[in-house]
Amino acid sequence: MALSTPLASLARAADASTPASTQLIDQLGRVCDRHGLPDLATRLIDLEAWVRGELREFETELALVNRGPRAVQRAALHLIDLGGKHLRPMCVALASKVGSGFTAPARQLAVAVELIHSATLLHDDVVDLADTRRGQPAARALYGNATSIFAGDWLLVDALRRIRAAGVEGLLDRMLAIIEEMILAESLQLERRGRTIGGPGDLADYFRVVEGKTAALFRWAMLAGGKAGGVDADGCAALERYGLHVGVAFQAVDDRLDYEGDVAATGKDLFADLREGKLTYPVLIAIEREPALREVVAALCAEVEATGVVDPAGCAEVVAGLRRTGALEATRKLGEDRVESAIAALAPLPAGPARDALVTVAEATLLREA
Amino acid sequence: MALSTPLASLARAADASTPASTQLIDQLGRVCDRHGLPDLATRLIDLEAWVRGELREFETELALVNRGPRAVQRAALHLIDLGGKHLRPMCVALASKVGSGFTAPARQLAVAVELIHSATLLHDDVVDLADTRRGQPAARALYGNATSIFAGDWLLVDALRRIRAAGVEGLLDRMLAIIEEMILAESLQLERRGRTIGGPGDLADYFRVVEGKTAALFRWAMLAGGKAGGVDADGCAALERYGLHVGVAFQAVDDRLDYEGDVAATGKDLFADLREGKLTYPVLIAIEREPALREVVAALCAEVEATGVVDPAGCAEVVAGLRRTGALEATRKLGEDRVESAIAALAPLPAGPARDALVTVAEATLLREA
Repeated sequence: MALSTPLASLARAADASTPASTQLIDQLGRVCDRHGLPDLATRLIDLEAWVRGELREFETELALVNRGPRAVQRAALHLIDLGGKHLRPMCVALASKVGSGFTAPARQLAVAVELIHSATLLHDDVVDLADTRRGQPAARALYGNATSIFAGDWLLVDALRRIRAAGVEGLLDRMLAIIEEMILAESLQLERRGRTIGGPGDLADYFRVVEGKTAALFRWAMLAGGKAGGVDADGCAALERYGLHVGVAFQAVDDRLDYEGDVAATGKDLFADLREGKLTYPVLIAIEREPALREVVAALCAEVEATGVVDPAGCAEVVAGLRRTGALEATRKLGEDRVESAIAALAPLPAGPARDALVTVAEATLLREA
Repeated sequence: MALSTPLASLARAADASTPASTQLIDQLGRVCDRHGLPDLATRLIDLEAWVRGELREFETELALVNRGPRAVQRAALHLIDLGGKHLRPMCVALASKVGSGFTAPARQLAVAVELIHSATLLHDDVVDLADTRRGQPAARALYGNATSIFAGDWLLVDALRRIRAAGVEGLLDRMLAIIEEMILAESLQLERRGRTIGGPGDLADYFRVVEGKTAALFRWAMLAGGKAGGVDADGCAALERYGLHVGVAFQAVDDRLDYEGDVAATGKDLFADLREGKLTYPVLIAIEREPALREVVAALCAEVEATGVVDPAGCAEVVAGLRRTGALEATRKLGEDRVESAIAALAPLPAGPARDALVTVAEATLLREA
């Protein structure tokens, strides 16, 4: 295919100085290639060229996070240094370019959103007793749970100080409100532990958790970039709606990957969410469409709880149920619908390369394989 | 004694509507009585009358903290509803009365400092795996560790929003810096787990931990009250110095109570700090004065680590060492010195009832029996 040449050469050019997000864009380009989406692949190449400078500036700034001698600082930096996709900072960068661009305050806001995201990962890993993160030992495995908790708190405080220093009207208040949303969603999810999946109201709870835990921070990233770039109130509201929908689409893709993705690529245990009693869209849809599956899932969870291992036969039965009811297709559809809504939300923004870039990012959300 | 009558009648008047801090003041009055300190007892009665209104306003405001349905909110409110001494809010109230008084913003700042303090207790109890707090089951025992962690985060965010809403210049930045100090002190303490007590630099570490974990929040409480009351920069600096010294004195009393207080009254396991590898002033001083005690303490800690129980003979040996070396007396002296420094720090402030009240509070710090 014609497109494989420039993408492959981009991949070869990737080295330590290549921003993580451009590596991701590059990887997505190869997925386009495989899926026969040459137009999107070309637009990803354009996007990569268009934000590479901003992402490098962001990563330079991120590398300057205070490397103190305390264990909480080392635990926090351990996670930061593992990289990550830097999607939320990319949202800040792109939203800022809808306006006057990725200025110094916008750069601080991009670092802040990555630090908040990292803080939630440090706390999540303690809550989920996770041993690995980004293919490496989790901070809690190296430094202990207590240090990981305080490391998350430390990053949170660092992020809030940066938002404060950026001095963009209203953003600190919004972040405090967003963090509260995230905590309440986290609480709702914790309260469900040990409860059978598939009761009435579960779908509503699913969206409350996803909007709070995942979409809220994307919303803030878009708002922060827009405000820092001087985008007007209507434009900022449009950017926030985009962030909400892209966030939900992102989670829908995650949910689908848990059941049909390559386990090694997702880096998660298959059925991890199910085992922790977390709501996951494909299973909720399958149970809605075939209520008898509820008992199968409940029995599987109870057995995992009692024995600590996943019964392969039970697993196969659930996966067969997901296929039979079209639940994975419905999850794919949820992602597609939200991407469509995200793109529609951009209508009030001026046409131009920034808006085009956001369309490309939304579409690329669905391509993720890991 | 003449004084027992009014104090006893105050005690009888104590009911659900009596602010927790005035109950504390009342209790301290009885201690004065027993120790033959009629002058301090009289001043405590005056103090109680002088701040009762402000403390009741604070408690009314605290009772309005959002009681949402989520587990994190219920866990946080469980701790708040257990009361506590409300010393930090009292610091805000007294400092505000050095200036123009306990206005609505000062009240919000008093609630904020109590919420931050409560957040640290929720996290500390998870870190220390504590089962009880204020004589009742700890939030983590009722709601689990994960919910307690997020409950602490939730209170932290609520506090920051209140400080923001109070709109007093510079206080949010200072609180973020103070929280970082608290986290780094917590980290230093965690890093010491499993290390033998009594090495070089331990005394310096002790003060870094105490100043960060305990004194920093007292400093902020004094600063916040002063600033809200319109006290000038020199006056605020004096109030902060007072907070620092009172905070250290407070911790010195705590340390002494662990070894000579009534176990039932302190509500802590005797030797709890020692078992967790925490630095504690009396033991550091005893080892400094009699280095052979270092091995006794190390052996005791190792045995507790291995068997889970404290050997009574080893305990008795350490306590005898503390007595022989005068370590408990030195700890009492540390508290007295810091109270003296706290009172000296007040010199730049105008003479008057507010300054007198702060002197009384500093002196009363040393009276605590629980």
